[in-house]
Amino acid sequence: MNRPSPRGKRIPPFTVLRFARYLNFLCNLPEEVREISSAEMARTIGIKATQLRQDFFTLGGFGRQGRKYDTRVLEERLREVLALQGSQHMVLVGAGNLGQALANYQDFERFNLYLRGIFDTNPKLIGLRFRGIEVMGLEHMQDFIREQGIELGIICVPHSVAQPVCDALVEAGIKGIWNFSPENVLVPEGVVVQNENLSVGIMNLSYQLSIARED
Amino acid sequence: MNRPSPRGKRIPPFTVLRFARYLNFLCNLPEEVREISSAEMARTIGIKATQLRQDFFTLGGFGRQGRKYDTRVLEERLREVLALQGSQHMVLVGAGNLGQALANYQDFERFNLYLRGIFDTNPKLIGLRFRGIEVMGLEHMQDFIREQGIELGIICVPHSVAQPVCDALVEAGIKGIWNFSPENVLVPEGVVVQNENLSVGIMNLSYQLSIARED
Repeated sequence: MNRPSPRGKRIPPFTVLRFARYLNFLCNLPEEVREISSAEMARTIGIKATQLRQDFFTLGGFGRQGRKYDTRVLEERLREVLALQGSQHMVLVGAGNLGQALANYQDFERFNLYLRGIFDTNPKLIGLRFRGIEVMGLEHMQDFIREQGIELGIICVPHSVAQPVCDALVEAGIKGIWNFSPENVLVPEGVVVQNENLSVGIMNLSYQLSIARED
Repeated sequence: MNRPSPRGKRIPPFTVLRFARYLNFLCNLPEEVREISSAEMARTIGIKATQLRQDFFTLGGFGRQGRKYDTRVLEERLREVLALQGSQHMVLVGAGNLGQALANYQDFERFNLYLRGIFDTNPKLIGLRFRGIEVMGLEHMQDFIREQGIELGIICVPHSVAQPVCDALVEAGIKGIWNFSPENVLVPEGVVVQNENLSVGIMNLSYQLSIARED
C-alpha cells in the first residue's frame, strides 16, 4: 500500500472515533460477509457516505465510489492505524453495577483488549468471579499492576474516591485511565485519561434532540 | 447580556461536549464555591485555558483573562444554551448490570433529566425497584411512553434485540435514543440517536496511549 497513510501522523480526535466505529462495525458483521460497499457501510453506521469515503481514502487505497471492499483487509488496516494489533491489558477498579457490566462486556477482546484484574474494597464483592476473573482487595492492586506490567486502568468507583484510586493506578505504572466516575480525574504528564462522564453523554443527546425539534 | 450568543445557532459537536463538561464540573463544585477563574477551571477539567476562554466568550460576556466568574450565572447560562432548563423524562430498556448502573446514577437529575420507567423481559428482574422505580414487563413499555409523553429512551439490551427495541421505542413516540448496546441502531428521520459504544471509548483511549508513547 504505497498511498498516503495516517501512520505516524496524529489522527484528529473525531476521526479516531469514526475509525473505531468502522472497525467495531466490521467486527460485528456476520462471518460470511466478506465485502461491503462504502455506501452500505455508511448507511448502516449512520454517517454520510462522502465522509466515510474521505476517511477511507486517508487509510490508503480505500474509498472509491461504487467499489466493494474486502472487509478483512479493511479491518486489518483499521487495527493498524488505531494501534490495536498487539494485546493490551487492563485492570478495573470498582466492581459495582457498572464495573460488573464492563467486566462482562465481551466485545473488548475483539480489539485485543483484555481485562486481567478486578479490584474493590467491598468484602461482599471480593472473591466473586466475572468471566473467570476474581475480584481482589484493593490492597493487592499495585503489586498486581507492577507484576503484570499493565498499562490501562478502568475506574468505576464512587465520585469521592476516584482521584485517590487514579493516583494509586498511576503510581503503580498505569499509563491510560478510562474514568467512569462523575468526577474528572487529574493525571500527570505522560498519562492519558478519558473521562467517560455519563451525564455528558445524555446532555449531548438532549441538546441534539432540542436542535432536531427546531428543524 | 447583549453579546454574541450561540442561542438558536447550532453549536458544533465538540463544543457541545465541552459545554456539557463545564456544566458537569460546575454542578460538582462544593456549594460554598461561588466564583472561579477560567485558569482554575481549565486546569481542573484538563483543557487548555485559551480554549475554555474562547468557549466562554461565545456564551456571551464570559471569558476575560484574570477574571473570576460567578459559578451560578455561568451554570445558568450553560443550562440555557444546552437546552436543559425544562425537565426531560426517560425510559430505560434492559435492567441488567449496565441498566441497573444507569438507573442508580443520580447525576442525571442535576440536569433535569428524570428516569421514569424501566423495562425488561426477564421475570427475575420484573418487580425489582431501583431508586423507587419498578422494573416492568416490556409489553407495558409502549403504553407507558405514550401515556407519559416520554421522549428519551435508553437501550441497555443485548446486541441481538437492540434494533427491535429501538423500533418499538420510536413507534411509541421516543425522539432521542441513547444506545449502549454494541450494535448501532437505525432510526427514522426526525429521531436522534447517540450510540455510546463502549468499545469505541476504549479504542480511543488505546490510540491516545499509543500516541503518548511516541512523544
